[in-house]
Amino acid sequence: MLDLVLNHRTIRKYKSDPIDEQVLDKILTAGTRASTTGNMQVYSIIVTSGQELKKKLWDAHFRQDMVVQAPVILTFCADFNRFNLWCKLRKAIPGYDNFLSFFTAAIDALLAAQNCALAAESFGLGICYLGTTTYNADIISELLNLPKHVVPVTTLVVGFPDESPELTDRLPLEAVVHREKYKEYTREDIDFHYHEKEALESTEMLIRENNVETLAQIFTEKRYTRKDNEQFSSKLLEVIKKKGFLT
Amino acid sequence: MLDLVLNHRTIRKYKSDPIDEQVLDKILTAGTRASTTGNMQVYSIIVTSGQELKKKLWDAHFRQDMVVQAPVILTFCADFNRFNLWCKLRKAIPGYDNFLSFFTAAIDALLAAQNCALAAESFGLGICYLGTTTYNADIISELLNLPKHVVPVTTLVVGFPDESPELTDRLPLEAVVHREKYKEYTREDIDFHYHEKEALESTEMLIRENNVETLAQIFTEKRYTRKDNEQFSSKLLEVIKKKGFLT
Repeated sequence: MLDLVLNHRTIRKYKSDPIDEQVLDKILTAGTRASTTGNMQVYSIIVTSGQELKKKLWDAHFRQDMVVQAPVILTFCADFNRFNLWCKLRKAIPGYDNFLSFFTAAIDALLAAQNCALAAESFGLGICYLGTTTYNADIISELLNLPKHVVPVTTLVVGFPDESPELTDRLPLEAVVHREKYKEYTREDIDFHYHEKEALESTEMLIRENNVETLAQIFTEKRYTRKDNEQFSSKLLEVIKKKGFLT
Repeated sequence: MLDLVLNHRTIRKYKSDPIDEQVLDKILTAGTRASTTGNMQVYSIIVTSGQELKKKLWDAHFRQDMVVQAPVILTFCADFNRFNLWCKLRKAIPGYDNFLSFFTAAIDALLAAQNCALAAESFGLGICYLGTTTYNADIISELLNLPKHVVPVTTLVVGFPDESPELTDRLPLEAVVHREKYKEYTREDIDFHYHEKEALESTEMLIRENNVETLAQIFTEKRYTRKDNEQFSSKLLEVIKKKGFLT
């Protein structure tokens, strides 16, 4: 199990081979065994494999080809709709139309997602998380018919890998771990923790290709710009509000 | 690996035996191998084991005794502070003071948390997630010295189990899984999906003990009431704002 976790690679190229239904059910079942707040299971998993709908999701996910290549797309949603319905049918008045409840449901959905990711990998399948889910939560909601109190929070692409990438670098453990309390970083700490990443050959290449001075500038000026972040941020808050979680 | 996931039990009683430092490092390393947005690793893990600080966390976590009993408390934080510092020291101007960035960092933190949970269980350790983290994010932030752009999103209690609970029930897989698109639930669907849970002996006992009519009422009237939800919701939004993620 530890080996599986330590050897995780994100896969961005997939074969079109389908996933056996029984295997898929085991992956989904693994998701449902994750911890869930008060055993409420306030999430839903949408399994999309039809080519037509995948094509539409591909558009919503910034046209990343793996979305149409891979056989299965799992959209994980924070979902208080089912629970609210149950309450109403059982003489109980739900009070889950607030931000805390949304966040609680999002936690549930994300823990389930990571269980599914690892279960998929245990079957030799590859996975990729799509951050674009929160950017275009409005479009995805429409495509998947998500009702009020259901918000998509992440997506997993699942399928047989058609590439075998190297293990990605990570910051040294001590860069992200704090003992007892949070210890603010000094300039020296930052230099120390980021040195290895900045010294990678791939980093030098990225800097040249992007015609910038530093790796950090690739993030702030190319990949995750203030303009994009602020635009998608407003949209996401609007979705959360429209879905009835910010009253 | 699949067996481990399928056999997960939340542990609420712990022995005080310490966790070997090397084992703990492996658990934390497993956390860092989880998928992370753009490989930014916008999270931090606070490892608290000192009895004095655990006592204060115990207070913040609704005085659940496992917080002082268990040897290690892991607080997972959405953290753009380190990344922002790095940007500023590398001639890059970060634009991550918005809700989308907070949510992105929260996703990172939660995927790391679930990897740590499973890694801990692979060593025979027990875990429990503390939902109280978001309820008292303000108090926990103060206790752990969390700076601006760092918000605690979940907590794992980790230690050797001092109980062996039965596997908890879950809704049938088809209750949480939708094929292609979301299918709205009918009254019959809800009855069908919740029937097994409602028929449990433990459910009947809970209903009697709480002097209510239905299981759903235990959630809405006792465990997760509108009043509590709304109070903690305001507090959480206030924390996110104060931390610089809602400008």
